[in-house]
Amino acid sequence: MDSSLPTTDTLGSLGETAVLARIFPRLPDADAAIIGPGDDAAVLAAPDGRFVVTTDTMVHGPDFRLAWSTPFELGWKAAATNLSDVAAMGARATALVVAIVAPANTQAATLEGIADGLREACAELAPGCGVVGGDLSVSDTLVIAVTAFGDLEGRAPVLRSGARVGDLVAISGQLGLAARGIELLFSDAVDADGHPDTARVPALRRAHGAELAAQLTPRPPLGDGVLAALAGATAMLDVSDGLGLDARRLALASGVVLDLEGVAIGVAGLALEGEHGEVTAENVLRGGEDHALLATFPLGIELPGGFRPIGHVREPGAAGPEVRVDGVPYETRGGWDPYEDWNGSRG
Amino acid sequence: MDSSLPTTDTLGSLGETAVLARIFPRLPDADAAIIGPGDDAAVLAAPDGRFVVTTDTMVHGPDFRLAWSTPFELGWKAAATNLSDVAAMGARATALVVAIVAPANTQAATLEGIADGLREACAELAPGCGVVGGDLSVSDTLVIAVTAFGDLEGRAPVLRSGARVGDLVAISGQLGLAARGIELLFSDAVDADGHPDTARVPALRRAHGAELAAQLTPRPPLGDGVLAALAGATAMLDVSDGLGLDARRLALASGVVLDLEGVAIGVAGLALEGEHGEVTAENVLRGGEDHALLATFPLGIELPGGFRPIGHVREPGAAGPEVRVDGVPYETRGGWDPYEDWNGSRG
Repeated sequence: MDSSLPTTDTLGSLGETAVLARIFPRLPDADAAIIGPGDDAAVLAAPDGRFVVTTDTMVHGPDFRLAWSTPFELGWKAAATNLSDVAAMGARATALVVAIVAPANTQAATLEGIADGLREACAELAPGCGVVGGDLSVSDTLVIAVTAFGDLEGRAPVLRSGARVGDLVAISGQLGLAARGIELLFSDAVDADGHPDTARVPALRRAHGAELAAQLTPRPPLGDGVLAALAGATAMLDVSDGLGLDARRLALASGVVLDLEGVAIGVAGLALEGEHGEVTAENVLRGGEDHALLATFPLGIELPGGFRPIGHVREPGAAGPEVRVDGVPYETRGGWDPYEDWNGSRG
Repeated sequence: MDSSLPTTDTLGSLGETAVLARIFPRLPDADAAIIGPGDDAAVLAAPDGRFVVTTDTMVHGPDFRLAWSTPFELGWKAAATNLSDVAAMGARATALVVAIVAPANTQAATLEGIADGLREACAELAPGCGVVGGDLSVSDTLVIAVTAFGDLEGRAPVLRSGARVGDLVAISGQLGLAARGIELLFSDAVDADGHPDTARVPALRRAHGAELAAQLTPRPPLGDGVLAALAGATAMLDVSDGLGLDARRLALASGVVLDLEGVAIGVAGLALEGEHGEVTAENVLRGGEDHALLATFPLGIELPGGFRPIGHVREPGAAGPEVRVDGVPYETRGGWDPYEDWNGSRG
């Protein structure tokens, strides 16, 4: 049998040991691994004497549709979203552990694709970062739970709470594009009954490649997290729930006002016309999954990497810490609540 | 309203932010946390310049039944099983991150109970260990994914691969009791149709407290992991898939024969008579979830903590590395495969 041919082996027909044997060779090694997978636990180098850790889970239904994402894209996104949280601390990502819960009738090729996506995301976004451990279990619903680690390389972590009045507010990465991507999938990649329809995805990818890539295979500007820390960023976070809510989080943690410029963030009808002209103010402020880095810097510092200025940090008024757009308080919360916002469907 | 009264608030009625506000105060702090929960990532101390990491997931159905385990017990077990893998490296557990995926109609009190169990398990089994981060999402099936960290305190990790011919084989912790516990639940805590029945659990707990405790709230001898490393253990692992399979793993990794004494492991019909007389050889060799520590030590060393001798490491014969019981090769694999062994039911 030609082993390069796709097979229809399922997790249930192969069993855990055989599945692991197919996945492991596809996973990336971590430069920081002293002891890698295969023992009770891995041992990772933390030369700094500290390490950064974050965890984020993707669930079939609320977080992705199998009709829209390939397994490769699921693995990629599971890595990228976690790596972005590491970068937002000003750290360099070193390793992941990955727990996958999948139905017994899942194709082994699906898990291979997830492993390939994890590997390629690490290789492109965080070279040297690898998978050092994991767990495999069974359930009716596919869940990918990733925990990611990072090295601060001797630097102080960049928290949400450090913004100071007078600082410049800056962003690195795309705003609104991932939200526009999911809007397009829900409007144009569904059948007549509104169910996700794989057959309609290719045409949508051709017409809106940037929006779908931002949603399905995000490329957070990870390197800019380290550059921001080196440049003296006073505060930073990963914009994953829409700029409005995440800017509010930074404002509240720091006890300041973030005064954003509508033109700079593309909500004044100017900045984003052209290449992605359909991205709306709603996408930017209330969208989600941008995985851009929002940071504040002392005035006068040359912004590093891909950071661009989008506003200023102001003294709070009577209303306390808040976000303003062109001086007007921005009240709408936005964000995604898995319990309130998911309608229970999958596809 | 008396806030001490149980409420019927669900995750869906409260929303993520309110649920987190109820869970966070119940979670234990970690002494090693430099930056705890609340930012994009946590920052943990790793004074040793390395850290140990392991991940293990519990899924409703294959790994637990809500009819048999209280939420407190689920949280306890999720912590204990992960902490045991840290101990099996010879490390001291420092922190956990916890991702919980739960149906929207889950009672908030269920998550509070899980948090309480995580806290009490850390407090009793690994004082100073705490929860430094997490994630909350929604699905039809309750999943608890824990990643645990440990500090080697300057010691070399104790791997599976270090056993040497002539070493003593020793065990710390209980064998077979957890497996007997799950047998009892499946036989005596089900209704006439074989479905898990909560109403039958209290009587079973009274009659078989030790067996049910071993299954539902395991107390792995975590401290003995560190003591084994300090005493010069050459190899160690967490016995979670039955002594037969886990001893085989150690034998294969080390390229040796583990020759176990039937009397010492209680499969010769002698050792376990009395308090837990119903524990069978099958429970001991093919059961699971013991979370005992299996280790090898150079001959002549005084066994530390609760370790007791159960056999010797021998030179492999023509059959290569293997496990023997009283000199007879033990072939039966045992272990639990989530894809092959779960019948798809929950309860």
